[in-house]
Amino acid sequence: MERSLTQLGNLIYDQINNQEFPWIHMQSRSTDNIVYDANIRQYVLGPRMIRRHSRNIRHIRPFTQLIWTAWFAKELVTQRKTSTLRETYYSARGQRDIEYSDQTESDNIITDLEVALNRAREEFNIFPAERSSIFGDLTIEYTVPGYEGRRTNLTDHPDGVMIGPAITSSEFLETTADKVLVIEKGAMFNRLVEERAHEKFNALLIQTAGQSPRSTRAIINRLHEDYDLPVYIFTDADPWGLHIAMVIISGSANAAHLRGLATPDAKWIGVLGSDIVNYKLPTEPLTEYDHKRLHELKADPRYDDPFWQEELDILLEIEQKAELEAFSRYGLTYIVDEYLPAKLQQ
Amino acid sequence: MERSLTQLGNLIYDQINNQEFPWIHMQSRSTDNIVYDANIRQYVLGPRMIRRHSRNIRHIRPFTQLIWTAWFAKELVTQRKTSTLRETYYSARGQRDIEYSDQTESDNIITDLEVALNRAREEFNIFPAERSSIFGDLTIEYTVPGYEGRRTNLTDHPDGVMIGPAITSSEFLETTADKVLVIEKGAMFNRLVEERAHEKFNALLIQTAGQSPRSTRAIINRLHEDYDLPVYIFTDADPWGLHIAMVIISGSANAAHLRGLATPDAKWIGVLGSDIVNYKLPTEPLTEYDHKRLHELKADPRYDDPFWQEELDILLEIEQKAELEAFSRYGLTYIVDEYLPAKLQQ
Repeated sequence: MERSLTQLGNLIYDQINNQEFPWIHMQSRSTDNIVYDANIRQYVLGPRMIRRHSRNIRHIRPFTQLIWTAWFAKELVTQRKTSTLRETYYSARGQRDIEYSDQTESDNIITDLEVALNRAREEFNIFPAERSSIFGDLTIEYTVPGYEGRRTNLTDHPDGVMIGPAITSSEFLETTADKVLVIEKGAMFNRLVEERAHEKFNALLIQTAGQSPRSTRAIINRLHEDYDLPVYIFTDADPWGLHIAMVIISGSANAAHLRGLATPDAKWIGVLGSDIVNYKLPTEPLTEYDHKRLHELKADPRYDDPFWQEELDILLEIEQKAELEAFSRYGLTYIVDEYLPAKLQQ
Repeated sequence: MERSLTQLGNLIYDQINNQEFPWIHMQSRSTDNIVYDANIRQYVLGPRMIRRHSRNIRHIRPFTQLIWTAWFAKELVTQRKTSTLRETYYSARGQRDIEYSDQTESDNIITDLEVALNRAREEFNIFPAERSSIFGDLTIEYTVPGYEGRRTNLTDHPDGVMIGPAITSSEFLETTADKVLVIEKGAMFNRLVEERAHEKFNALLIQTAGQSPRSTRAIINRLHEDYDLPVYIFTDADPWGLHIAMVIISGSANAAHLRGLATPDAKWIGVLGSDIVNYKLPTEPLTEYDHKRLHELKADPRYDDPFWQEELDILLEIEQKAELEAFSRYGLTYIVDEYLPAKLQQ
């Protein structure tokens, strides 16, 4: 990582030494250059490139911001520190000549740096504040300062382990699990931990705490690629739950410039619209906002597949949605004793 | 805990055996019976009692709900399982004769059961889904099934440890820390962990993830009472940050029926309104909603003290607010190297 940043710096220095106004060449992230690639089943950036040029008065601001952010990233990496998106923004505000009107502008520049370097920001130690967690038989080795070489097994702590910078940067050494079970919510994650679902299903359990942070999607991808573990996703039966699953499977337009985040082979196993009917789950009526969102998803290229179209249609038809916790009507352990075994068998 | 629930059950059985319609006597939780007790510096329930009587047609619904919830709690405790508020609600929806119009009604009945038993719901294994976390030299021993007798030190995991059912129910064995530092947000918590603030300040670090869950407030209280550790709270300089501190210090009206949650000796150390000015922090203007909230707080009895009134006035005067991360303008480590040492010295 340090090398990529040094290269970027050298490029700028060379341009200045050659008496040029420095500039950077990078892929365009504008909406018309984000295309869905059906082959690799995720959004990617198209071929269009842009040049951000310090000779152009409209470019000076984002150009300076980008260079400052690259400097800041270099500091983080060499000092082995991490920063959140928000701290990065405030750090910039301490600089006399770097201006940002709000954090969105700063977040955007960080994404530009990802594109320019072709690396995810987690690699240059900028993390979001979100927190998801993981539990199960996976032995890891930490690489963060003060913990180098220290190993832990992710069953050691019965409330599960937060996926923060330390887990994200750790090495995965060993697992006996033969699948990954991804759950949308903390409550259901705790239920599965408590019912020892990791043993019953021989699974690593990951909870995304809503829409999964990128570092969590990267971990899911790593477990699938490196250990060949099939991934099963288990969310609410509503447009938000479906989309949590879809973003794990096919990625997001925002991250079209990155690879290693989408896991196209991951399977969404429920709660299906048909489960609502078959299991007579307690439901809530769809809100107007749910309706709107379902129609948006129907038009989204990631949902082109007949399976997804049908799932969207079922929800629109029955006009109801259901949550993971709805299975509690049959007792707290029903989901582990009956529902999940049936689903995983399919 | 099991005994309290059995007693409640026996009471009902005895009444039925005596050919009475069963009833329960409990403190009233209506607003006019919640009073601020300046002596113990928290909200308490007043002397008014209510009788919930199954002979009264308007009482039958909440009475049945309460008895069902007590049964459910007994199941949880004897089977050593935990449940979230939400799962409890859905479990009730599986019963033929228990009706709830929404989760709020169920949450309310759970609070009634707390009042009837004079115990916090965490003691009968009903937890919220929120998640805060803790880090520092505290050795604990788990009591949850499968982990009995297992010990861990809360520095073992460099991302910090989530405060879930396992931590909440664990025994605290040993600590070398001489203070507790409570932080409102994950980002700043990570910063402090990364800068080894737990060693520099000899502190246990707790992040509340916004308004702190009750289990976290109970842990803060336990550390203060059992280990005599002073507690320092560090939040944003805005009405929400102030109130996060205040609820840790003086409790909430919602939990007026419980003891052991408020820590009146805890000190809010910042970000003070005066810090915004003295440290020239980057700020945001107050929104209309912030204004409204500041005026509400001014009228709140917990803010009667001149110190708090002045802090509220400063924010209203400068019309600005600032976040913890704002100190990053002086570099990522400024807060640990300069600000906190100065504050803790005072």
